[in-house]
Amino acid sequence: MNKVLIIGAGVMGSALAVHLGNKGQGVNLWGTQWDNEILDDMKKSGRHSGLDVVVPNGIDLYYEHQLEEAFKDVKLIIIAVISKGMGYISKKINPYLNKKHVILTVTKGIDEDTLTTMTQVVEQSLPTELKNQISIVKLGGPIIAIELAKGKFTEGIFASKDIEAAIYSADIFRSPKFRTNISNDIDGVELCAAFKNSYAIAMGIIEGLEGDFNNPKAAIMARGSIEMANIVDAFGGNRETALGIAGVGDYYVTSQGGRNGKLGSLLGQGNSVEQALEIMNNATVEGIPMTLNGYKLLKELENQGRIVLKRDAPLFLEIYNILYDEKSIKDGINSYWNE
Amino acid sequence: MNKVLIIGAGVMGSALAVHLGNKGQGVNLWGTQWDNEILDDMKKSGRHSGLDVVVPNGIDLYYEHQLEEAFKDVKLIIIAVISKGMGYISKKINPYLNKKHVILTVTKGIDEDTLTTMTQVVEQSLPTELKNQISIVKLGGPIIAIELAKGKFTEGIFASKDIEAAIYSADIFRSPKFRTNISNDIDGVELCAAFKNSYAIAMGIIEGLEGDFNNPKAAIMARGSIEMANIVDAFGGNRETALGIAGVGDYYVTSQGGRNGKLGSLLGQGNSVEQALEIMNNATVEGIPMTLNGYKLLKELENQGRIVLKRDAPLFLEIYNILYDEKSIKDGINSYWNE
Repeated sequence: MNKVLIIGAGVMGSALAVHLGNKGQGVNLWGTQWDNEILDDMKKSGRHSGLDVVVPNGIDLYYEHQLEEAFKDVKLIIIAVISKGMGYISKKINPYLNKKHVILTVTKGIDEDTLTTMTQVVEQSLPTELKNQISIVKLGGPIIAIELAKGKFTEGIFASKDIEAAIYSADIFRSPKFRTNISNDIDGVELCAAFKNSYAIAMGIIEGLEGDFNNPKAAIMARGSIEMANIVDAFGGNRETALGIAGVGDYYVTSQGGRNGKLGSLLGQGNSVEQALEIMNNATVEGIPMTLNGYKLLKELENQGRIVLKRDAPLFLEIYNILYDEKSIKDGINSYWNE
Repeated sequence: MNKVLIIGAGVMGSALAVHLGNKGQGVNLWGTQWDNEILDDMKKSGRHSGLDVVVPNGIDLYYEHQLEEAFKDVKLIIIAVISKGMGYISKKINPYLNKKHVILTVTKGIDEDTLTTMTQVVEQSLPTELKNQISIVKLGGPIIAIELAKGKFTEGIFASKDIEAAIYSADIFRSPKFRTNISNDIDGVELCAAFKNSYAIAMGIIEGLEGDFNNPKAAIMARGSIEMANIVDAFGGNRETALGIAGVGDYYVTSQGGRNGKLGSLLGQGNSVEQALEIMNNATVEGIPMTLNGYKLLKELENQGRIVLKRDAPLFLEIYNILYDEKSIKDGINSYWNE
């Protein structure tokens, strides 16, 4: 049982496959129907054109109808589909799961229907007899797919209620250029992975509004980190998670360029959300749905008395106001700065 | 008693004066002998050429021999000289101090002779009858002088054992574009302000070694933040201080360009420390002496059983090894990444 199954041959799934393949780890890379072209391309050329890397030996490619075959000799299953697809995919793999499997999710986000984490979506999708039998691990931290595929120094955190499963997953990933951390705070890692998208929009906003200066961005960097710790705390997780790789690290990497920051910058320069998205050719900007879902989640926590939004997440509140309550950028930023 | 005295008319002292002056706060700006030219220039042109800003009304300029006059009508005294000058200056102002004064320090560093914080240097320099009578506040956080002077959004943290004094200082600084935080963790703010210089070198090193990629830098950003929290903790401060403005915020701002990063980048590209400094025209790089002083301080803490360097500050250890123990960049980074 020594192959890793990667569900989803998008940019992240493929990058993880390349990383593991380069380590000599056997990989079954399974694509959804939307990955057909990528799989064709890899089969034909031996390269992943999007990542601009050679696909190492030891990666076997599987098309959507070959899901059962893809499970052969597999213990670790990595789910790397987009957040909208988590529920669907989790159910799709049910027939092939057994209690020896370990599931590792890398998808970041809050599910818009249930306002739960990606891990919770997977857990809820497990067949009844396997609930609490299969360990679920979350891989968080600053991992830009293309940089991982190109073998740049990378660090990730493997979080699970089952520490043994986290260690098992980390061992599979560890390499001289991939540093690993272990945590039991899976909720904390999930929340940081999700919320950092909203704060990355704020980093862009302040840059678009004020210009490319570092005092403002540093202040937003710090405030986002504090608020993520407050959010994790309110959820029952560990504040330390926000301080490290999953919080500060992922927030930093997401703020260095990227679409959240780009959108924020356009907003800061005076565009409406609609105008900004048009300029960006309607690119998917994770922080936009995340801010709405995150707001609803935080409101739930507030109703339970576990957080006070105005006190514990004032910057997030203003991001929400700007994106969803038609608050002007200037008013939103000034509200935060004079709060 | 409504004037603020700023001791030191270097770039930071002058920037603070401009910020306060623009708020309508009366300022006495006192320069050491090394500030004579700056004072002359400001008197003559009404501008600070280094900061490239107009000097607002309400700032009175005092030369070194006019120290006593500079104290007239003053309650808040801001010490903004370089770290090497803290002891000397603290003693120099002794004759004019009384218990109604509040001292605010902005200088960042660890004193090389005593291995104490800047606040401790000031405290130890106070005349006996005023020890524990005068409140000392530290201003920390990401405050680049030229950006503050130009009125960019800025956020700072005012830390003191005397919370009233911290609030008093913050009130003087607060403006619609200067956001303030209050803390009682003055040691934590001091330590973050000092140690971030070393970690900024590490950010530069990884960029110079690996290239301008974000996975590596994000990992170093996170690790530095965690380690600063561990160091603050070991010293008896509050880990949260490292999470916020004083830690993450200042670390971020210091890593965006700046001499620490520049030196690190040159080291990462293969230069020795000596070669790198030559390329930089022997510019002062705070992180270099800070790494030595910080190491000695941490060794003291380790001897007291309050920290375990290899476990709690492995990245700092490698920075020290690289700068002072002739460890190669590759070995240093690999030691950290494979630890």
